[in-house]
Parts: sequence; C-alpha cells; structure tokens
Amino acid sequence: MALRTLSAKNAQKLDEELMSSGAFSIDQLMELAGLSVSQAVFKLQPLEKGKRILVACGPGNNGGDGLVAARHLWHYGYEPTIYYPKQSKNELYQRLKKQLEDLDVPFTDDFDAAVGAADHIVDAIFGFSFSGEVREPFPKVIQALRDTKVPVLAVDAPSSWDIENGPPSDGPGKGFQPPALISLTAPKPLVKHFKGRHFVGGRFMNKTIAEKYSLDVPKYEGLDQIAEVSVEGQKL
Amino acid sequence: MALRTLSAKNAQKLDEELMSSGAFSIDQLMELAGLSVSQAVFKLQPLEKGKRILVACGPGNNGGDGLVAARHLWHYGYEPTIYYPKQSKNELYQRLKKQLEDLDVPFTDDFDAAVGAADHIVDAIFGFSFSGEVREPFPKVIQALRDTKVPVLAVDAPSSWDIENGPPSDGPGKGFQPPALISLTAPKPLVKHFKGRHFVGGRFMNKTIAEKYSLDVPKYEGLDQIAEVSVEGQKL
Repeated sequence: MALRTLSAKNAQKLDEELMSSGAFSIDQLMELAGLSVSQAVFKLQPLEKGKRILVACGPGNNGGDGLVAARHLWHYGYEPTIYYPKQSKNELYQRLKKQLEDLDVPFTDDFDAAVGAADHIVDAIFGFSFSGEVREPFPKVIQALRDTKVPVLAVDAPSSWDIENGPPSDGPGKGFQPPALISLTAPKPLVKHFKGRHFVGGRFMNKTIAEKYSLDVPKYEGLDQIAEVSVEGQKL
Repeated sequence: MALRTLSAKNAQKLDEELMSSGAFSIDQLMELAGLSVSQAVFKLQPLEKGKRILVACGPGNNGGDGLVAARHLWHYGYEPTIYYPKQSKNELYQRLKKQLEDLDVPFTDDFDAAVGAADHIVDAIFGFSFSGEVREPFPKVIQALRDTKVPVLAVDAPSSWDIENGPPSDGPGKGFQPPALISLTAPKPLVKHFKGRHFVGGRFMNKTIAEKYSLDVPKYEGLDQIAEVSVEGQKL
C-alpha cells in the first residue's frame, strides 16, 4: 500500500480545516508538531551520540515547529542552539522564543560557527508553503546545510526543495539531500525524490480528514508521536 | 531528598506565572498536561489489559486535562468514553470537546452504567482549585469512584480531597483512596495521605520557576512526559 502524499495546496487547506471545523488552535497543533520533531531527533541522535543540536528556524510555521522542538529537546537533556535570523513579530512565535530564553537556550547569528559546533542539525527553515526563490540570509545557510557532514533532519521539506517537484536544479539547494526528513501530518510529493530516513509525525489526524484528503494514518507504536516509514515504494 | 509539594495557592500562582511571564498559552499547557495523563494511563493500563477508558471530567481545567488525555488515548488505540455533565461554555473546552466528537468518542450521561463498562477510569473532576463542598451531580459520581473495583487514576487530586489536608472526614469522598495519582507540575500537599502509585507529569517547568516555588524537577526518562515517584517518603 502506498503512503499517499499531500500537495502544498491541500496541506494548506488541511491546516485551515483543522483550525476551523477541526477546532484545533495553532498553539495545540504546533506543540504536537514540534513534539514530533523532537522525537525524531531523539531517535536519530541518541543523547550519548552528542547533545548539541542546532535548530535552524525560518520565519514561518516551519520555524515555529523548530522552536517547539528545541524546547522539548532541552527537557530531554540536549543542548539546543537556535539560529533564527528572521524573527516573526507574531505573538505566538514571540512566546515560543521566550519559553526558550527562560531555559537559557542560546540564540546565535553565526550559522557557520554553530554548524561547526553541532552534533546534529534540524532544518526548520522552509516548510510546505515554500515556493520560488530562497531569500537572504538563507542562501548561504542552505549551502552550509548541503555541504556539512553534520547530519541534518529536515522538517516537512529539505529547505529550498519544491514541495511538488523536489530538489531544485540550481541555486543554493542544488544537491541538498539531507539524511533524514520528518513529514508533518502527511508526506508531501517531494518525498519521491528523497533518499534518507523518513518519519511521519503529528498524531492528531481524524478519519474524516484522512478520508477527505485521501491520506494514510501511519501505524504509530505505543506512545510515539512519530512513525518511521520507508521511502522506497512509500510503504508503511 | 524529599519531593517538595506545591500548595493550592502557589499552584494557582505558578499557573498564572507560566501564562504571563512564562509566555505559555493555556492551550499549550493543557495539551502537555493531558498528554502526561494519557501516558500514565498507558503505563497503568496497557492496551492488552482492556481498552475501555472512562474519563470523568469536571467543569474546570482538571476536566480539560481529561478531555485532552482522552483524545491522545484514542490515538493510542484505546476506546475512551467521556462523562462531562457540567460542560464549560469556555471556547477552549468547547474545542477540546469537538476534537473528541470528530473521533466519534462517545459522551455519556449515565455514569454508573459507564463505570460498569470500563476497564479503567480517569478522575478528572476536581483539581487543585477545589475546596469546600462537592456540588451536584458529583456526590454520587465520587461515591461510585470510591466504591468501584475498576482502577482509577486521579488527576492532580482524588476528587473531593482537600488539596492541603487530603481525604475528607465525611461526605461522598470519605474513604476514597484511588490506586493511582498523577500530579501535574508538582505534587500537592495531599500526597502525604495518598497510598497508591504516584506519577508526576508536565515536562515544561523551567529552573527559575522550580527555584522560585522550591520545587523538584523529577527525573524524567527518555521521551517520557511522566515520571513515577515513590509516595512513601516522597523520594524521587
């Protein structure tokens, strides 16, 4: 059975539906999404393999998921550092940032130095609403993500990838193929081009929404908020 | 080392502080609290021991934690049923209820019948803001919780217990001693009188708040949102 994908347009619609008729608040959904991301990091990078997690956050929801994930990682015993160069004025993001400051989680402006000091990186720069061009200061950030040997977990999409068509044929993301990806709610079409380990997270989908958008609910185990799925063949 | 307790007054203050200077929203805190409750149920009542969980929800935040827990339990594969006779008009609770309805989780008015059909019960009726008298329709509900042989997990307090002084000396809760308790954020003074298994949940406390309120952050393991603590001697 194929694990079906969700187009960028439908991902947007599904989110809006969860927050209107589904009655979820964005705080709730982002908390659960960020929790999923933190669990994928825990699986990929056990504490004993190195605790220094660099979380690269973009200006939108993908960055918000990264901020939540960093908070949970701190509670698990990791040492997260945040790169968040384009901070949203939105009250929710400001609050998520404050929650990290209260844990003394450092924010850095020097991405290259932070990569050099990291054991693992979370790419929470762009998510399913990305399209078009990579704007400043992110081109060199994406190049660094592409070129580093530090393992990268991408959230929803390797940043700069086209949501439908996958890796860009030129620009800073050309050749960016991170070793791991977590798809939130459902995989986007780009996963057909993805070659690493693949997780699905966001254990809040109901059957009505899954049916309406022709999605599969992955087989989560126990209390896990994530499920690892194979990429080849997209089987569960 | 003793696991220190948090008075009802300070529990209220701490919650307010988390939501003001701590920058948490109630949606976030309730999501994490309810998630903790669901993890305690998972530990106490593995799926193979019986999936039918009756969640008794009161009119306030304790009931909200129960509603969130029930949703997570559904996602784990349990079959929750909700008893929620005094429904808050508050928009948050209405939304949490809608999220359960969308999963086809049943709501019942017949508590006695629901107890008879349950494998495990969550007592989310009254929390740390309870004091004074048990109002209708809860006296007979608390009697049923006291008298049933179905195991009960109490959230923050066995309902009807005085937060400082523990079990009431008369009324419906006289003699109510459930087999399990989950204390959210920190144990309340009543735990000195509690004889069952004891969990602490709510993995979001920062050091500043822990120090300010003279609390211990329990030793959570791995991804767990709960930690089991001994009751005798209150040791971690």
